Amino acid sequence: MRMRYKPWAEDYLKSHPSIVDVDGTHNGKMQAWFDNDAPIHIEIGSGMGQFITTLAIQNPDINFISIEREKNVMVKVLDKVLEHNLTNIKLICNEAGELTEYFMPNEVSRIYLNFSDPWPKRRHTKRRLTYASFLKLYKEILKDDGAIHFKTDNRGLFAYSLESMSQFGMYFTKINLNLHQEDDEDNIETEYERKFSDKGSRIYRMEAQFHSN
Amino acid sequence: MRMRYKPWAEDYLKSHPSIVDVDGTHNGKMQAWFDNDAPIHIEIGSGMGQFITTLAIQNPDINFISIEREKNVMVKVLDKVLEHNLTNIKLICNEAGELTEYFMPNEVSRIYLNFSDPWPKRRHTKRRLTYASFLKLYKEILKDDGAIHFKTDNRGLFAYSLESMSQFGMYFTKINLNLHQEDDEDNIETEYERKFSDKGSRIYRMEAQFHSN
Repeated sequence: MRMRYKPWAEDYLKSHPSIVDVDGTHNGKMQAWFDNDAPIHIEIGSGMGQFITTLAIQNPDINFISIEREKNVMVKVLDKVLEHNLTNIKLICNEAGELTEYFMPNEVSRIYLNFSDPWPKRRHTKRRLTYASFLKLYKEILKDDGAIHFKTDNRGLFAYSLESMSQFGMYFTKINLNLHQEDDEDNIETEYERKFSDKGSRIYRMEAQFHSN
Repeated sequence: MRMRYKPWAEDYLKSHPSIVDVDGTHNGKMQAWFDNDAPIHIEIGSGMGQFITTLAIQNPDINFISIEREKNVMVKVLDKVLEHNLTNIKLICNEAGELTEYFMPNEVSRIYLNFSDPWPKRRHTKRRLTYASFLKLYKEILKDDGAIHFKTDNRGLFAYSLESMSQFGMYFTKINLNLHQEDDEDNIETEYERKFSDKGSRIYRMEAQFHSN
């Protein structure tokens, strides 16, 4: 997500080291950072953070980590964490491609991907967050029964992801091909989702796991 | 597909034993029935046969088999076969559940499922043609690189099928979530598809294969 450049963003994030990791300080020690044994759920590409902060409020017994590379966006997540005095959420301001640096193998119980960049051009396929090289990272950090929860309004990205994930050896436990037309009281909307759903776009959603080897 | 009862249907089908098998005469000997070595592609639930007879006309080097249990419907397929003098298509008037009686293991190269009955009630899940017990039959008769091509206008059945097939150990090589909005010049419409697409319904399509063990 692109936002207006905020020259103060980096300093603001760094001024909250108990919540935000901007330089890899807690790499490989995420569970210890929370100082408890609760399961860790992460969101890759959190945008402005409506989704993950709502989850954090509703689920005090889960540890949440928001990963977002754009500092200008991450400040919005930090604002929400501070506003609600949330202690069960940490922010990593860095790239998804470095996931295995942040987490130990089998450390994560769930990964959320919400409205990821669709990278519609074929030559950008490798940048999609459901491309095989990313799935390999997810498999490494996820527990054996861990799940990926994926949501998008982009039909092409959803179809591609079903193909890519199934080819990688994943299976789907729940698929919605028109989320807002189906019963799903548990759905938590993102800012982006609200905007596009209001315009009449379909929202697609899946829950996926890795076949055990 | 339900059609008006035709008391003459059984006699009509039986009067063309070189094309129609109504009593299992050719069970386990399908390739021999064609008297050639061309690949066998089958359609389960052919309805009135527009789809499979069009394929047969376009692909003289493929052997096609239409499986349809309703005699009152099958006569429409036979009419088309006779009208076009097609020699590369046979009809089996029987249940899909008996597939492994008709075919030898690894005998079939492709299975088409078009607009199968969605059986939307949960208690009828086992009747859906993508339920695990049917996938087991398909896996047995399909060659290792054989594929299932599935098309439906029913959103619930499509989502269910993606779940069921991936959980069974299948992967998807091509998925269309709105077929008629996407480029697919090769698409051959069924009678049913034309009718529902004209009403604005989305058509969903997938190509799927089994992971090797």
